[in-house]
Amino acid sequence: MLDRPSDARSAGTFVHDDPVAFREAVRTGRFTGPTQGQCPGRLQANLVILPAREAEAFLRFCVKNPKPCPLVGITEPGDPRMPGLGRGLDISTDLPSYRIYRDGEHVETVTDVSDLWRDDFVGFALGCSYSFEDALMKAGIPVRHVIANQSCPMYRTSIETVPAGPFQGPLVVSHRAMPPADAIRAIAICDRMPLAHGAPVHIGDPARIGIRDLAAVDYGLPPVREEGDIDVFWACGVTPQAALRASKVPFAITHDPSHMLVTDRWAESTTPEDLQRPL
Amino acid sequence: MLDRPSDARSAGTFVHDDPVAFREAVRTGRFTGPTQGQCPGRLQANLVILPAREAEAFLRFCVKNPKPCPLVGITEPGDPRMPGLGRGLDISTDLPSYRIYRDGEHVETVTDVSDLWRDDFVGFALGCSYSFEDALMKAGIPVRHVIANQSCPMYRTSIETVPAGPFQGPLVVSHRAMPPADAIRAIAICDRMPLAHGAPVHIGDPARIGIRDLAAVDYGLPPVREEGDIDVFWACGVTPQAALRASKVPFAITHDPSHMLVTDRWAESTTPEDLQRPL
Repeated sequence: MLDRPSDARSAGTFVHDDPVAFREAVRTGRFTGPTQGQCPGRLQANLVILPAREAEAFLRFCVKNPKPCPLVGITEPGDPRMPGLGRGLDISTDLPSYRIYRDGEHVETVTDVSDLWRDDFVGFALGCSYSFEDALMKAGIPVRHVIANQSCPMYRTSIETVPAGPFQGPLVVSHRAMPPADAIRAIAICDRMPLAHGAPVHIGDPARIGIRDLAAVDYGLPPVREEGDIDVFWACGVTPQAALRASKVPFAITHDPSHMLVTDRWAESTTPEDLQRPL
Repeated sequence: MLDRPSDARSAGTFVHDDPVAFREAVRTGRFTGPTQGQCPGRLQANLVILPAREAEAFLRFCVKNPKPCPLVGITEPGDPRMPGLGRGLDISTDLPSYRIYRDGEHVETVTDVSDLWRDDFVGFALGCSYSFEDALMKAGIPVRHVIANQSCPMYRTSIETVPAGPFQGPLVVSHRAMPPADAIRAIAICDRMPLAHGAPVHIGDPARIGIRDLAAVDYGLPPVREEGDIDVFWACGVTPQAALRASKVPFAITHDPSHMLVTDRWAESTTPEDLQRPL
């Protein structure tokens, strides 16, 4: 079977191009790895699933905090499909790995949540940084942690999110260091990608947003910096994850970090309006 | 006569809205002052007039250095009109003040160059920073030298322009200091205004572009800075003026600094393609 990566090469290096075939491979258990680099150029998304009771406040949290929580898709209650994001896309089966939370605690990691699905569940797809990192690299801007093949540095900041219901907490940012001229181009490129966190939230002195020591990361690994680099900080998708845990809502499902929802949409050319129309 | 500002108020405070009426006031000698703040929202431009012999190389200089020299209009040889920039616009009469250069020396300042006009003259209109400063202020970003009502700090840098014929020399930049979050918005806003120097060329440490001391300006006045500001540097329209003087071309005309060509085009919504079509 041609679409079975493990038949051809090691699962770790095979790169799928077609998102429909990729999700089929995920759904049938043939692909279980991280999604970075899969279906190059396609919009990937963070996933949050909540019962309707909590979903209503979470939707308000996303609308009030569009930079950390760029809403790219939302399901009708009880319906696991997102026809605006992918043909045949089912969020209960199409991610390689999921985390189950009870009362804010991560209690289990599973590869399918269709058996847990309830008719009051609402799913949220939130844009992620993979899309803009691809765009930066294509523009010749060095994304140093990607080049070093290590995870991105992330920090809790002194900037508070706008609260909604039980959801609140500090803005979490991701960090990339680069030459100043590249930082200017990165800002312009990312400003055109509101579905992938948009323009950075801070540039220059980390202390201005409450980061005392760049080496003391809250998530990921310490930054790779070069002489003359300037520090650039983007709103990060860990923000809603942290708000979700801190809220201690009785039940929630999220993607397992690095195991994203891969959509049919092109990351760079898709507008927020596009996403409302079925493919 | 209603369009005669000096009839109504002092010439220094009257603000024209209609660029056609404004240029009529300039042409007839009723307006001779600086143009900042006149016809709010309209694209204003630097002017360079050269004989065809030097104009050919100067056009190449502009094309090779689009950030300091954003070409918004060019005349046919011998024709002083720019129908893409304004109804009835005549560059030999429609600027409040002109400088005449011989062998790179500023020899005279005049209010009309129609008597000097030759059938081999080519005029260049180059975008200027007034347009983007308006856009920044409208976005609520403090432009500190405008607020302080003083001229903008400008510096020669260690960045070389791309030479063309006799035209070459250092990139000259203008400087504005602002809070980092505003700098990010300013970059995004200016990136969408390629006709007004586009996105900045540098952000952060001035030494990286050869500026050792911000207080030691090469043109204008030292910067106004506030605690926590970051330094942002834009390519400046003084760059081609300096290249023109250094080239010692036998004859050239430019606008007198601060006395710009006021066009009919809207600064923020005009695309480079728009400018090629007559109004």
